Amino acid sequence: MDVKEIELKGHIIDSLILPRVFDTIMDLGGEFEVLQFEIGKHKTDPSYARILVKGKNRKVLDQILGELHKMGAAVPEMEQLTLKPAPKDRALPEDFYSTTHHPTYVFLEGEWLEVGNIEMDKVIVVEKGEKKAYCRPISEIKAGDLIAVGKNGIRVEPPPRPREYTIFEFMKSSVSSEKPSHHLVEQIAKEILETKAQGKKVLAVVGPAVVHTGAGEALATLVKEGFIDVLFAGNAMAVHDVESQLYGTSLGVSIKTGRHAEGGHRNHLYAINEVMRAGSIKGLVEAGKLKKGIMYECIMNNVPYVLAGSIRDDGPLPEVITDVVAAQRAMRHWVREVDLVLMLSTMLHSIAVGNLLPSKVKTVCIDINPATVTKLSDRGTAQALGVVTDVGIFLPMLAKELLKAKKKP
Amino acid sequence: MDVKEIELKGHIIDSLILPRVFDTIMDLGGEFEVLQFEIGKHKTDPSYARILVKGKNRKVLDQILGELHKMGAAVPEMEQLTLKPAPKDRALPEDFYSTTHHPTYVFLEGEWLEVGNIEMDKVIVVEKGEKKAYCRPISEIKAGDLIAVGKNGIRVEPPPRPREYTIFEFMKSSVSSEKPSHHLVEQIAKEILETKAQGKKVLAVVGPAVVHTGAGEALATLVKEGFIDVLFAGNAMAVHDVESQLYGTSLGVSIKTGRHAEGGHRNHLYAINEVMRAGSIKGLVEAGKLKKGIMYECIMNNVPYVLAGSIRDDGPLPEVITDVVAAQRAMRHWVREVDLVLMLSTMLHSIAVGNLLPSKVKTVCIDINPATVTKLSDRGTAQALGVVTDVGIFLPMLAKELLKAKKKP
Amino acid sequence: MDVKEIELKGHIIDSLILPRVFDTIMDLGGEFEVLQFEIGKHKTDPSYARILVKGKNRKVLDQILGELHKMGAAVPEMEQLTLKPAPKDRALPEDFYSTTHHPTYVFLEGEWLEVGNIEMDKVIVVEKGEKKAYCRPISEIKAGDLIAVGKNGIRVEPPPRPREYTIFEFMKSSVSSEKPSHHLVEQIAKEILETKAQGKKVLAVVGPAVVHTGAGEALATLVKEGFIDVLFAGNAMAVHDVESQLYGTSLGVSIKTGRHAEGGHRNHLYAINEVMRAGSIKGLVEAGKLKKGIMYECIMNNVPYVLAGSIRDDGPLPEVITDVVAAQRAMRHWVREVDLVLMLSTMLHSIAVGNLLPSKVKTVCIDINPATVTKLSDRGTAQALGVVTDVGIFLPMLAKELLKAKKKP
Amino acid sequence: MDVKEIELKGHIIDSLILPRVFDTIMDLGGEFEVLQFEIGKHKTDPSYARILVKGKNRKVLDQILGELHKMGAAVPEMEQLTLKPAPKDRALPEDFYSTTHHPTYVFLEGEWLEVGNIEMDKVIVVEKGEKKAYCRPISEIKAGDLIAVGKNGIRVEPPPRPREYTIFEFMKSSVSSEKPSHHLVEQIAKEILETKAQGKKVLAVVGPAVVHTGAGEALATLVKEGFIDVLFAGNAMAVHDVESQLYGTSLGVSIKTGRHAEGGHRNHLYAINEVMRAGSIKGLVEAGKLKKGIMYECIMNNVPYVLAGSIRDDGPLPEVITDVVAAQRAMRHWVREVDLVLMLSTMLHSIAVGNLLPSKVKTVCIDINPATVTKLSDRGTAQALGVVTDVGIFLPMLAKELLKAKKKP
Repeated sequence: MDVKEIELKGHIIDSLILPRVFDTIMDLGGEFEVLQFEIGKHKTDPSYARILVKGKNRKVLDQILGELHKMGAAVPEMEQLTLKPAPKDRALPEDFYSTTHHPTYVFLEGEWLEVGNIEMDKVIVVEKGEKKAYCRPISEIKAGDLIAVGKNGIRVEPPPRPREYTIFEFMKSSVSSEKPSHHLVEQIAKEILETKAQGKKVLAVVGPAVVHTGAGEALATLVKEGFIDVLFAGNAMAVHDVESQLYGTSLGVSIKTGRHAEGGHRNHLYAINEVMRAGSIKGLVEAGKLKKGIMYECIMNNVPYVLAGSIRDDGPLPEVITDVVAAQRAMRHWVREVDLVLMLSTMLHSIAVGNLLPSKVKTVCIDINPATVTKLSDRGTAQALGVVTDVGIFLPMLAKELLKAKKKP
Repeated sequence: MDVKEIELKGHIIDSLILPRVFDTIMDLGGEFEVLQFEIGKHKTDPSYARILVKGKNRKVLDQILGELHKMGAAVPEMEQLTLKPAPKDRALPEDFYSTTHHPTYVFLEGEWLEVGNIEMDKVIVVEKGEKKAYCRPISEIKAGDLIAVGKNGIRVEPPPRPREYTIFEFMKSSVSSEKPSHHLVEQIAKEILETKAQGKKVLAVVGPAVVHTGAGEALATLVKEGFIDVLFAGNAMAVHDVESQLYGTSLGVSIKTGRHAEGGHRNHLYAINEVMRAGSIKGLVEAGKLKKGIMYECIMNNVPYVLAGSIRDDGPLPEVITDVVAAQRAMRHWVREVDLVLMLSTMLHSIAVGNLLPSKVKTVCIDINPATVTKLSDRGTAQALGVVTDVGIFLPMLAKELLKAKKKP
Repeated sequence: MDVKEIELKGHIIDSLILPRVFDTIMDLGGEFEVLQFEIGKHKTDPSYARILVKGKNRKVLDQILGELHKMGAAVPEMEQLTLKPAPKDRALPEDFYSTTHHPTYVFLEGEWLEVGNIEMDKVIVVEKGEKKAYCRPISEIKAGDLIAVGKNGIRVEPPPRPREYTIFEFMKSSVSSEKPSHHLVEQIAKEILETKAQGKKVLAVVGPAVVHTGAGEALATLVKEGFIDVLFAGNAMAVHDVESQLYGTSLGVSIKTGRHAEGGHRNHLYAINEVMRAGSIKGLVEAGKLKKGIMYECIMNNVPYVLAGSIRDDGPLPEVITDVVAAQRAMRHWVREVDLVLMLSTMLHSIAVGNLLPSKVKTVCIDINPATVTKLSDRGTAQALGVVTDVGIFLPMLAKELLKAKKKP
Repeated sequence: MDVKEIELKGHIIDSLILPRVFDTIMDLGGEFEVLQFEIGKHKTDPSYARILVKGKNRKVLDQILGELHKMGAAVPEMEQLTLKPAPKDRALPEDFYSTTHHPTYVFLEGEWLEVGNIEMDKVIVVEKGEKKAYCRPISEIKAGDLIAVGKNGIRVEPPPRPREYTIFEFMKSSVSSEKPSHHLVEQIAKEILETKAQGKKVLAVVGPAVVHTGAGEALATLVKEGFIDVLFAGNAMAVHDVESQLYGTSLGVSIKTGRHAEGGHRNHLYAINEVMRAGSIKGLVEAGKLKKGIMYECIMNNVPYVLAGSIRDDGPLPEVITDVVAAQRAMRHWVREVDLVLMLSTMLHSIAVGNLLPSKVKTVCIDINPATVTKLSDRGTAQALGVVTDVGIFLPMLAKELLKAKKKP
């Protein structure tokens, strides 16, 4: 039987880390002995535990240690970071380390370095001469890149469970449509105002239903009034937005009445063609043809946007990044600067962005489909608030609340 | 081969009646020959068709005629109403006529009489001496009651398809959450105002989610301000309403924050006990303990309510009608007086009420679950508008809209 | 500041009890000091903690102690059970104790007595002379009954978290339709076989969709072959079952093809009338008219059933208990004898039964609607397995699996 | 007031064309006069109508005629096809004609030519010298291409409504999970067998849930046994398939038990890396590392596949087409050869493929989420059967049924 000693420090009991450590050891077929245990006498005191972990062979033990390590356990002898070169472009050494989205450190030349641009399910590349470590997706690995392998010399810091009440605790409880959504508007407005007051950035990830449900005007107002710093969407949202401005419809359905308008679905293609002829959405604005709406406000207020392609797209519009790896790269660039993300009625884009987010970013996911909110929660998005509601009335209420706050002295 | 001649009159083409007649004949294995056909030259002209229907035997032909009859076809030889006595209490003669919810007439002693209190899937009882015909549920049939059997001598009048645009056309198109719900608020408010302006009555069918989602205050306001004339709900809604007034929670969850409150689910039982001790909800109001909320406003403003029991009920409260047949009877009484029904987040009560409604009553069904709206539509509810949205923000917006209209000179 | 010392014993760390204790104290605004702490050195060793709990006043402290108590904390000074008489029928003393569904004990005349027939959200009635304690719903309380109040002298034992892998852990993870349902069939069959092999009972709670989706034959087979000991359903399921046997349709839709059959919805009422004329479902069987199906097999194999009424019911059939309190009482009677419950596509009945179940009963909930499964999980049903799948193909597969096992030597 | 005479021929009444023509004229603010009307005396006789359409001005009239034209109305004076050159790459002349997915003809040099490769919401390009007309997406238009504009000289032929009963009628009725899915398995198997017996091709559009729910083996069998001729999927499905073969998990969850396996989500990335190291999925097969599964069977049996990228992709695998326009082009190539499409648990790919399909292709859409099926129906997919069921047990049942049929002499 192989054994190894590990240490745990901090709020390991009230953050549920200690019980999860015991669980994990037993679930993976190991055993343990508690060598030392000191519990904080008061709620602010950290605790300390020294535990002997046992596995029936080296492989089992390593598996266990790997899992414990992710929970923040320090394995005294595991400080030696191992690096191996990528065997070829877009390929990794066999036992590469797969990242979490929590802050992560590597032990390099006697020092703990924070891994830059952390993202979930990626790898760590170390630039040894420069003493720098970065998180990279597999699609950007070049042959010879030094990749962190195994678990030694890598430390993660899961965020502490907030003791104070915050709306971002919601996601922990099961996703339900029976929440007091009316009162949540105020709380989400407050979070946005605080984020902006601290000079931080808000990202809106926008699905086409925002336009379909008649909330496009509210979102345009939020962009215009400076509440949105970056916007991600797909081709469909941009087309619907243009269509609604040019013809008053979204996929041929009137934005005001919900009725199928004369000419029907054709307006969708006509809107695409107008943009094509103008060369771009920006071109359509400059030609004086597009005078309002979400895309218009982004362009006029220099709010950067990423339009990412999908195989459902008609057109697509010239601004759409049709290569999905390039689109991910563009989104990745902006994601690093934001502190609060509003995900508005889009499963595809919400999950894509959720995968890119470090765990410290706050996320509000608004969708009438509980499955979107559940999926996001299954992917381990931390600090997330899921609201199962109708974006078509939620967003206008949120806009009203934010404008009211802005007008106050 | 058996044959019979039928006649169709009216807007049989643009109401889709003629094509459905042809379809039905062929679907049931029959054939037809068009003997005469006169189409209106202008859109306001009625059309006329005389059709020879053929079936391979009498049984097939009768089946076809039965179906055509429901669509309003006049079968010249079918005018003779047949009546048979009920063989015992709550039992019917074998080939009894099962009603639709459209206006229905029976040919009795040389005259067409309208069947009173029409409801779907019930039977027609004729009081011969008094020349009166009523619609009755099977549970209220007494031995010897004269029941209409077969299809002869019975005529139904499906409502004409409205030519003007109305919001109640929506239900026809597939139920979707991607409708501009924001704008629908105004249109529904307008319908309520018109109904009230004509001195007609509005019924609210209310699920517990109205309280859970924080919309209870909005509904209480609607009751107080006279927009609701009758209210149907279950035990749960009433208990949550009382709980929210006494303790600020609904099933132990804070109405303001959505957080599980201290003491948790216990508040639910405590609220029930308070009502039990006071003898009734009304008793609690009179004792000065219940001072606000939906039930409070009903009691203070003499708005009649029916609380119908279900097997999920805790308690239940003294006002709850625990016998479901008695509860149906109580609901049936009020349903006959209303012209507009708001169904708010309750599948059980919405379908129960839907089954009782004549087709002329307008129905607005608000639910975040598309299945509720779809089910109602499957049951053939006519003149219905289904909105897949979040009642927690929809209802406050509707209340605001209605109050605004009321204050105008 | 008020203080009280409490003790915790057992697997308080790996059952997450200790961290939840700390959490609860702090969430309710209290503080704590760990006086003594001994952790088991090996995984089979129990741990022990003595903790000083502090509240800013007596009320806060009592609230905290009440919550800790539910988690199994022993409060040495809290051993004195307090009883107060019910002030009138169906009313309780103000600070009555509201039960959990875990095994519960009261300290009476120097001894810990187990509370009989435990159920969630009910009250404890003590018959002092006989030294017996029972769990009772508020609707069955008589004036003068001795009711347990406060938290002193009451102890609950939450079930230990299973260390071994069992399928009943599933419910803990988020409810998802993306589970390998195909393989689950075998595991559920295994659970049913084990339950029966131990001479224990299986309850089936059946919704009308079982008949609609064509799974009625499979369920009838399960009843016939002795896998179901008790059956709960509503009026609709029984009517659909009879209708499908007499006419091959369910609500007028062909069970074989899913097509709307000739005569449409009328078959539903005709089936009701056949039962009415025969006096009961049993009468219809005895008259030789009902020869197969779920209800037929129940009657022929002496499997007891409870048909509970709801306000949606047509008819209802004579066997249906139309008073919901009486229906609860009937269900409560059988629930006490069962060890495994199959909940098949019915939200109303599943939740009603879920509310009656002691936490030791295993529950399998099959529904295509994730909301039903989620709701059940929200209500705290322990040892539950929720499978989001299509009962129409799941049940035939389960029946096949069980029959295969039965035929083996 | 402007007027124009139109003609309608064929089964214009029982295909609902005539009433829809009347409706459309009135909905768009026009009027009409029926000049001549001859109805077929028997069900096989076509009908004929000559109608004078009136609009208050030329613009209104043209709008009306455009809509009528889509329904198959012949406008005698409208035979002259107008062509205009594309002003630049990926841009169209302003009043371009937007296609339906029905068979379409253009009147060119005195002859009606069928438009090749018809698809919904595209444009018609005419190669005049060659007397050929093609349907093209906007993204493939080159400057100077001759584009059909207006509505003159274009004729569409909507498919007749089938008179015989087929399972593909289902989609017309509202989408419901309460269909007898058990019996549908046989009917879908029959359709597949007939398609294959006629030497026609079956396309499977596959979502990752097929692997998650444990149906991967069944699909692999269908590929191996020759029931699938082409396969479309995304990166996720392919990765999950490889992961399930290499590690027995899908996104870290065991395919057999549904439990989170040791090592968790890491297996997902490890599977990607194995493919990357081998250079491609095919490379992994050739290296003897991938020995079973969906992708393995496609490669070994020369079943062509298209893996289309999305912004959610990890990796993505080398075979994935990351440019969405290129991916559409690849799918478009195969779609033209297929006669039956199985859409298995994927909203994104199902809708993308649905947009590419001519209306004559039969479509079976299997999804546990009613929204996917509804969306497909909203997009006007004709001859479609939507089954709301659990692919995890539906597909194994379907495979069993098909294998059984194959073994018969």
